[in-house]
Formats: sequence, structure tokens, C-alpha cells
Amino acid sequence: MAQNIYDNPEFFAGYTQLRRSVHGLDGAPEWPAIRELLPNLSGMRVVDLGCGFGWFARWAGEQGAAHVLGLDLSENMLARARADTRDPRIEYRMADLERLELAPGSFDFAYSSLTFHYIEDFDRLARMIWRALVAGAHLIFTIEHPIYMAPTHPGWSVDGEGRLTWPLNGYLVEGPRTTDWLADGVQKQHRTIGTTLNALIGAGFTIRHVREWRPTEDQVAADPELAKELERPMLLLVAAQR
Amino acid sequence: MAQNIYDNPEFFAGYTQLRRSVHGLDGAPEWPAIRELLPNLSGMRVVDLGCGFGWFARWAGEQGAAHVLGLDLSENMLARARADTRDPRIEYRMADLERLELAPGSFDFAYSSLTFHYIEDFDRLARMIWRALVAGAHLIFTIEHPIYMAPTHPGWSVDGEGRLTWPLNGYLVEGPRTTDWLADGVQKQHRTIGTTLNALIGAGFTIRHVREWRPTEDQVAADPELAKELERPMLLLVAAQR
Repeated sequence: MAQNIYDNPEFFAGYTQLRRSVHGLDGAPEWPAIRELLPNLSGMRVVDLGCGFGWFARWAGEQGAAHVLGLDLSENMLARARADTRDPRIEYRMADLERLELAPGSFDFAYSSLTFHYIEDFDRLARMIWRALVAGAHLIFTIEHPIYMAPTHPGWSVDGEGRLTWPLNGYLVEGPRTTDWLADGVQKQHRTIGTTLNALIGAGFTIRHVREWRPTEDQVAADPELAKELERPMLLLVAAQR
Repeated sequence: MAQNIYDNPEFFAGYTQLRRSVHGLDGAPEWPAIRELLPNLSGMRVVDLGCGFGWFARWAGEQGAAHVLGLDLSENMLARARADTRDPRIEYRMADLERLELAPGSFDFAYSSLTFHYIEDFDRLARMIWRALVAGAHLIFTIEHPIYMAPTHPGWSVDGEGRLTWPLNGYLVEGPRTTDWLADGVQKQHRTIGTTLNALIGAGFTIRHVREWRPTEDQVAADPELAKELERPMLLLVAAQR
């Protein structure tokens, strides 16, 4: 079973303060880039793997999805998701993605935001999602970029000219990474981009789009803090199709 | 026209001393990984974009390729390739890949080693290669990994614990990079992995395999210098299919 860091009180308290927790999808700077990749969800059966507070599930409902299944390992997250959701077409369920089995061909679209980098056996999960989708259906997900996750000391340093620099190492050493983000000992799984894409291809998916997220000029103008996100990628967006 | 650094005497003199120039394919540590991706070339019409000294062209000939066209911008490289080649099925031609046009459907396999990162308009080149291949044909290529190319100061530093660290910055700022490798002012074109893959997808290719090259344990045991290649990727291998 994957580490359930979201039910760690310290982590959860910190997480609820993040912009993306307070403001939902619009609080996530990568949301406009994700939205460009999304199909029209009207009438679709949608599964959200790692649904958190249910922001995407509710949005999918507003777009006319026929049914949305939000899955998460954290009872804390699910409790708030249920409390914040009125749409009867949206259902939330506790699930460990390391073991989850969905019925074959039961979904028209699969989504996941910042969850798969917690998963040890991504090969298995990719094959399971492929089976759970109908032919032609899309899977769109984000993960922490492996450049962001790889280093032994993932934090900015400044070079001799005052430029922010990311101290990359261990990029090709795949496996667990432990960081102290919001709480001590958060466990993530480092995989190269190649390994992630090959897992999808091996499962039968066709890769449709790969985006190493960067803020737009307008975003940087509105929030100059985002300029540093041009130095190294924090997020990877992938669109694949069964 | 792309910069023709290979006809710079200083660069060329340095280049001819590299292991891969002296020992050919077996002098390139990524060759075993490339070879795993290659189809059976027997009877195929093969184009090598950036053929250099013709090592791959001759190897393809030995594998039974029906015809091999080696293309390069450098007359120095082509002169030596011609001098070292006896196989009449192998032809070399001067070509600027920024402008090259090959006849539609004229090749069964396209190969390129460490060349596309010099190309400014990769979108155009990807579309041209797609047209030049028959349906089902593969394109397999290597480029310098964008992590390797991005930084303002691409050289190792050592962190507080003595671990080699790669000072990454500018990863999401695409465009020219100038380095002083073998000669001053070598111009390369930095693109993210996503941009490279999306260009191929946009041209009509299906992505078959993406590998951020790392040395095997056996390679590191035989040449401990290669251990540092685990810290950050130097090369990207891509297999795509029309």
C-alpha cells in the first residue's frame, strides 16, 4: 500500500493551506495547460485517480459528465470532497491505486493530478487504466517532474552570477525519494520521463502530448515568483489515448 | 543553414580524437541501447541524417541494407566517410538538414545520431522525414539530453556531501545554446523532451520508445568514469514509427 501521507495531521494541515487547496483548479498554475488537453467531458463516465478535495470531479460534473468516480487513499480528503459536493452524479470512494481494479471498459476518460508519482508499480496501474477505458478514450495526468524529484537536496542554489540553479543528481537512479514537504518523510517514486512514457506505451496507450509545464508570460507578469519555474520543470503533463 | 562546426579545423581535430571517432559504434557507450531499438535492416533503404564518418552507414550495409544514404553538412566528415567505405550500396551526400527534401516514401528506415540538437526547425525536419518514410517505417535517433544542454554553465559541481551535481537552469527557456566544446562557440538548439516528442507526434509519428540513456552496471564496472552519467542524463534515445 502506498504511504498515506494525506492522513498525516501535519501534512494535511499544511496541504489545506496551499493555493490549490483553497482556490481549487484556478489556484493551480498548470490548470490552463491541462484544460487545453481535455476532451469535451459531456456525457462521459470519468474516473479521477487521486481526487483529493474533489475540485476536478465537481468541474467534470459541471461540464456535463454522466458520472464521475473520484478515488483517493485519504479518508480526510474524501470526507471534505463529499461535504463539498452536491452533484449526485459524482461518487467518491477510498482506493489504493497500487491495487485498484476497475471494471474493463467502464470509463470514457481518466484523469489524475499529482498522484502517480506516489505509485510504486506504475506499469501495473497503466495496464489497469488501459483496460478500464473504452477504445479511443484519453488518459490525462500530471506528475511531479523527475527533475524536480530526483535530487538528494531538492532546493534552489544560486550560481556565481546570481542565477537560480537546481542541483540535479541521481536522475537516472530510479526508486523512492523521501522529502520533508509539509511533513517529514514524504515518500515519492522517482521515474525518468522515458520510463513513464514506456510504461504507457507498453500498456497499449498512444502518446498524444507531453508537456513539461512552464508558466506563460502573463502568469509570470501576474506573479513574478513563477519566473523561477522557467529554470527547472516542476510538473509533467501527459496525454495518452487507448 | 545550421552552423557547420565540423568543418572548423580545431573542432574537427578534437572530434577525430573522441572514442566514438576512433572506435566507431563500439566506442559509443549508448550503442548497445540503440541497437536494442533497431529493426532488422536487411533489404531496407536506410537514410542516416548526420552520418559523420559513416560508421552507422557501413554497419547498416553489413546488416544487409539494400541502400544506405548518409547525409552530412561537413565535407570533412564526408571525405573520410567515402575514403573508409567500399560497399557500393552506400552513398554519401552533402546536405543541410534545415532544408533537405527527400522523395516521399523513399526510405524504409531513418536513423540519426547526435545531430538533431543542431537543428533549429525540428518541426519541419520531422514532417519531412515522415513523408520520406514508407508507412510502418521507423525513425530512431539520439540527441543530447535537454538537461545536458540547458544550463548556462554545463559542468559538474560538488555538493556539501561530495556528490556530483549538475547545475540545471534555463530548462524551460528553449532556443540556442552556445558552448565551448572542442572549439569555441558551438551552437546547439535546446528543446524540452516534450517539445521534441510533440513535434514527432504533430508530424504523424507514433512514439514507440523514449530512453534517457544510462550506462549499465557492467559498463560502469568496466569504466568507473561512467558512474557520473547516472547523476544527469547526457543522451536521449527516441524510437518513432510512421
